[in-house]
Amino acid sequence: MQDCIFCKIIKGEIPSHKVYEDKDTVAILDIRPINAGHTLVVPKKHSTDLLDIDDEDLKKAIVVVKRVAKAIKEAVNAQGINLGMNNGKAAGQLVFHPHLHVMPRFENDGYKHWYGKDISQEELTKIAKKIKEKIN
Amino acid sequence: MQDCIFCKIIKGEIPSHKVYEDKDTVAILDIRPINAGHTLVVPKKHSTDLLDIDDEDLKKAIVVVKRVAKAIKEAVNAQGINLGMNNGKAAGQLVFHPHLHVMPRFENDGYKHWYGKDISQEELTKIAKKIKEKIN
Repeated sequence: MQDCIFCKIIKGEIPSHKVYEDKDTVAILDIRPINAGHTLVVPKKHSTDLLDIDDEDLKKAIVVVKRVAKAIKEAVNAQGINLGMNNGKAAGQLVFHPHLHVMPRFENDGYKHWYGKDISQEELTKIAKKIKEKIN
Repeated sequence: MQDCIFCKIIKGEIPSHKVYEDKDTVAILDIRPINAGHTLVVPKKHSTDLLDIDDEDLKKAIVVVKRVAKAIKEAVNAQGINLGMNNGKAAGQLVFHPHLHVMPRFENDGYKHWYGKDISQEELTKIAKKIKEKIN
């Protein structure tokens, strides 16, 4: 897409630090990493996010995520790896072309995990029913 | 695996709020959700995390993640969806059986995004080279 920064990176119109590329997927370093080695896995075909990405592109991307995660772990001696994907502005998405964050982690690196809330069994039962009804 | 809580849930030995199930994958509500509707997509076959999961199980799981994400968005009228996966204790993993978090998000729901750090072009070039060397 014309104004998409990731489409421009994929076409080589904007420079990037590429760590992997094949026919369908590219992996580039995040230029504001949470830790050095933080990589974005990006399907080449333009779409917006997880909700409208093509299933085949998504399957290819997730296998690249696994390969890249292993490589990052070795390259920077990470103790753990977080996978993240932000879909929609409310979820922190900044570039509206699907991309999966692969982030090396270390004990006490200062990043806090999100903590959940208490919820009743009744509420859980009600919500599970609603989601089940919507799945197709 | 005998002492794995997700293996027990999959076998029905521990109750759960199931929202989806097929031959290879199950999706259950997180009992401490960041927001109501927070769901875990879990491949049935036991492994530890992203680094040792079977590629085929991973591809099946990610397509379920997409389907579940759409259903959650509709069920709770979410404005965004975060996908997350913690691999290793340093990355916040608590149950050592791969699971993908699908989390509904709302503007101003109080969850902060991780912010990256400044890094030089030289450092990025060096790290990209290291990761490239490790990819196989």
